Amino acid sequence: MTNNTLWQRRKDAIGPTYSHFYDEPLNLVKGEGAWLYDEKGNKYLDCYNNVVSVGHCNPNVVKALSEQAATLNTHTRYLHENIIKAAEKIKSKMPAKLDTVIFVCTGTEANDLALQMARAITGNYGCLVSEHAYHGNSSVIGAMDPDRRITVGVEWMEKFEPPNTYRGPHPDEESDLAEYYANTAREAIERLKNKNIDLAAAMLDLSFDSNGILIPPDGFLNKVTDMTRAAGGLVIVDEVQSGYCRMGEYWWGFERYGIDPDIVTLGKPMGAGHPVAAVVTTREIAKNFADIDSYFNTFGGNPVSTAVANAVIEEIDNQGLLENATTVGKQLEAGLTQIAEQFDFVGNFQGSGLFWGIDMINDPVTKEPMKREQLRHITTLLKDEGVLMGSTGRYGNILKIRPPLIFSKENAEQALNAIKKVFMAISK
Amino acid sequence: MTNNTLWQRRKDAIGPTYSHFYDEPLNLVKGEGAWLYDEKGNKYLDCYNNVVSVGHCNPNVVKALSEQAATLNTHTRYLHENIIKAAEKIKSKMPAKLDTVIFVCTGTEANDLALQMARAITGNYGCLVSEHAYHGNSSVIGAMDPDRRITVGVEWMEKFEPPNTYRGPHPDEESDLAEYYANTAREAIERLKNKNIDLAAAMLDLSFDSNGILIPPDGFLNKVTDMTRAAGGLVIVDEVQSGYCRMGEYWWGFERYGIDPDIVTLGKPMGAGHPVAAVVTTREIAKNFADIDSYFNTFGGNPVSTAVANAVIEEIDNQGLLENATTVGKQLEAGLTQIAEQFDFVGNFQGSGLFWGIDMINDPVTKEPMKREQLRHITTLLKDEGVLMGSTGRYGNILKIRPPLIFSKENAEQALNAIKKVFMAISK
Repeated sequence: MTNNTLWQRRKDAIGPTYSHFYDEPLNLVKGEGAWLYDEKGNKYLDCYNNVVSVGHCNPNVVKALSEQAATLNTHTRYLHENIIKAAEKIKSKMPAKLDTVIFVCTGTEANDLALQMARAITGNYGCLVSEHAYHGNSSVIGAMDPDRRITVGVEWMEKFEPPNTYRGPHPDEESDLAEYYANTAREAIERLKNKNIDLAAAMLDLSFDSNGILIPPDGFLNKVTDMTRAAGGLVIVDEVQSGYCRMGEYWWGFERYGIDPDIVTLGKPMGAGHPVAAVVTTREIAKNFADIDSYFNTFGGNPVSTAVANAVIEEIDNQGLLENATTVGKQLEAGLTQIAEQFDFVGNFQGSGLFWGIDMINDPVTKEPMKREQLRHITTLLKDEGVLMGSTGRYGNILKIRPPLIFSKENAEQALNAIKKVFMAISK
Repeated sequence: MTNNTLWQRRKDAIGPTYSHFYDEPLNLVKGEGAWLYDEKGNKYLDCYNNVVSVGHCNPNVVKALSEQAATLNTHTRYLHENIIKAAEKIKSKMPAKLDTVIFVCTGTEANDLALQMARAITGNYGCLVSEHAYHGNSSVIGAMDPDRRITVGVEWMEKFEPPNTYRGPHPDEESDLAEYYANTAREAIERLKNKNIDLAAAMLDLSFDSNGILIPPDGFLNKVTDMTRAAGGLVIVDEVQSGYCRMGEYWWGFERYGIDPDIVTLGKPMGAGHPVAAVVTTREIAKNFADIDSYFNTFGGNPVSTAVANAVIEEIDNQGLLENATTVGKQLEAGLTQIAEQFDFVGNFQGSGLFWGIDMINDPVTKEPMKREQLRHITTLLKDEGVLMGSTGRYGNILKIRPPLIFSKENAEQALNAIKKVFMAISK
C-alpha cells in the first residue's frame, strides 16, 4: 500500500481533527533504541520523542508489559503487588515528604486530579499558570492552553509571564529579572482577588516546554511558590516534561530549582509509550482529599500499567540514564554553543540535559522570531538528513531537541552535525 | 508475603485515596477467560469486570499488544496503519453517519472531549445529565457525579430524573412514565435557560449503570434527544457501559433505543484492560470542531493501543460474542425471574444481555432499599462461593452482574446457583 493510499484512508477514518508532522508525513513501521524506521527501511535518529524514555521498544519494558498482560490485568480494587512496587519505586526517587502515589492514565488526568485535590483541600477555586502553558487537554486543563479555544467559564485562571531571559519581555537591563517575572505572578494573583477568587494552586511546568524550554532566572520559582502559599494555594509541579531525568543531574525539575512542591504530576516518559501517569503528594494532602472526596480511575494503577512503570524506572537505574542525560547534555550544550556562534539566525538556546530549545530568529537586532513555516522547512530538512526534531514556543520558532534518555554521545554528534548541515543549507 | 504485609505496604505506598472491594480484599494473581485466581489458587468466576470484555488475558489480544509493543509505539503525528484499521473497524459497527473516530485513553477523556466539541460547535455551555450519573473523573465530567464533591462552578449542569420504572419516583399509576421522566429533563433545560445558559449537549449513559441499570420506558430517550436538539444542544451518547455488545442484540445502546446520537463515546471494554477509548462523530461535527479548535492526545490512537482496539473487535466478531451476550442474557433473565419470585428481598431486576441490576429491598411494601453494608455482606458471601459481583445505584442497593462477554451458559448457571445459595443463607 502506498503512503498516498494510507493517507487517504487515514483522512477517511479519523478525519480533520488530527494534525501531523511534515507535509509528507512519515510512515514509521519500526523503532529500536534511538532509531525509527520507515516503510522503505530509511532510518531516522529520534531527537524528539521523550515518551519512549528508555528507548523505542526497550526489551525489558516490552517483556514486563507482555508477561503481565498474559497473566492478569484488573484494577486497584483488588490487591496486587505491582502497584505497590511501582509506587515504592517512585517514592524512592522523591523527597520523604512526597510519600503517596495515585495512579492515573495520562498527564492530563494527573494535572486535572491535582487541581481537583488542591481545590477540594483549600476550598479555593483559582489557579495560577504561565502564559502559553501546556498542561493537558481536559476541559479545565486544556483551558490553560491558548492554542485551544476554551474561553468560557475560565475566570478562575490567571497567567504570569514565562521567564524568558533572552526574549523578554524585560523592561531594562538593570531590572532584576526574577523579581520582574515574579511580579507578573503577583499581579495575576491580584487579578484573581479582584474577582473574589482565592487561589487553590499554582501549576508549574518546570521545563517551560511550550514556552520554548526556558531556564528561569535564579530565585524566580521560589518567589512564585512563596507567594502561592501566602495566597493560600498549593504548589503543583508538572513534571511530565521536566521529570524522569530529562534535564540531567536531577530526577526532577523541582530538585534542580530547590523548590518544595505539594503535589507533583508525572506522565509521558513514565510508561515509555504505555498510558500510565501519576500524582505524587504528601500523606496529609492525600488524606485530606480522601476525607472530602473519592476518586477512582478504571485503568489507573492496573497490574499491567504498573508493571511497565516499574520496568521503566529499573531501566533508568540499570542503564545509568540520569548520568547519561547529564553527560550527553553537556555535549549538546557545547555543540549548540558553537552552532549559535556560527549562525546569526540562532538567537539563543536554552535547556539542560536532553532538553533544548533553539530560538530561531530572522533579525538579530529585533529578535524577530522565524515563522512557523520556516521551522517546518527546517524540521523537514532535518528529517531528510535522517534526524527528527520538532518545534515549539509561543511563536512556534523554537527548534526542539528532546530525544529518548538513552541518546548516546554518537547520537548527539550525529544530531549536531545534521543541525550544522541544515543550518549551512539555509544560510545560503 | 502474606496479604496483611501486602495490605500494609499498599497503605504505605498509595495511601487513603484508594478504596477496595471486600473487607479482606482479594489478592488476585492470575486471570483466564471468565476466571480469576488468588494467591492461594482459589478460583473465582468473574461476574463483575466488563473491562476485560473478551476474557481475562485473551491470547489474541495479548499477542497483538505484545507484538506491536515490540515493534513500534509512537503517536498520531506520524502515519501508521493500526490507527486506520481500528477506526475503520469501529466505523463498520456504526451507522454510516458516524464516520469519524478520535482516539483518547479513557472514557473520562472521551466524555470530556465530547463535551468540549459540543461546546465549541454550539457556542453554548450547558449540559443535561441524569441525576446520580457517572461519566468519568475529570474536573468537568466528575462534577456530574454526586459521589464526588465538585460543587463550585457547576452552574452549567442540570439534571433529569433517571427513569426508574420500578422505584420511581412516579406520581400515580396512570401517569405516562416516559412523559413524566421526560418532563424532568424539560424542567432541567428550563432551569438552565433561567440562568441564561444555553444547552450545548445532553450526556446520556444508555445503561443507566450508576442508577442501578435501568431499562427506560419506551419513547423516553427519543423525547430527551428531541428536546435537546430543540434547545440547540448535541446528543452525546456515553457507550462506555452500554456499548460493545454489553446489552445483547445490538452493538450499541443507541441502536436498542432507536436514537440518533451526534457524538458517541467509547471506553472500558474497547481495550480489554488497555487504556484506549474514543469519540465517534459525524464528519461535519469533526470538521466544525477542527475549524474552531485543535486537540491532540499523546497516547490516544498510538500503534499499540489501536492494535489492541483492533484485536478486541476481531475477537468479538470471531467468537460471536454479540450472539453470546444475547443468548446468555436470556438465560440470566429467566434465572433472575425465578429468583425474584422466590425471595421477597428481591424488589425488582432490570437489565439486558450481560448487564443486570437486582434491586435489593428490606421491605416489599415501602421498597426500602437494603443498606450498603448489607450489599457488602452479600457480595462477600458470593465471593466466598467463588463468584465476584458488585453493587451500584443511587442507594448502593443494586446487586450488579456484568461479566466479560465470553460468559458461557455454564458460567451463567454457576452464577445463578451462587446467588440462590447466598439468598437462601440470608433468608434464614
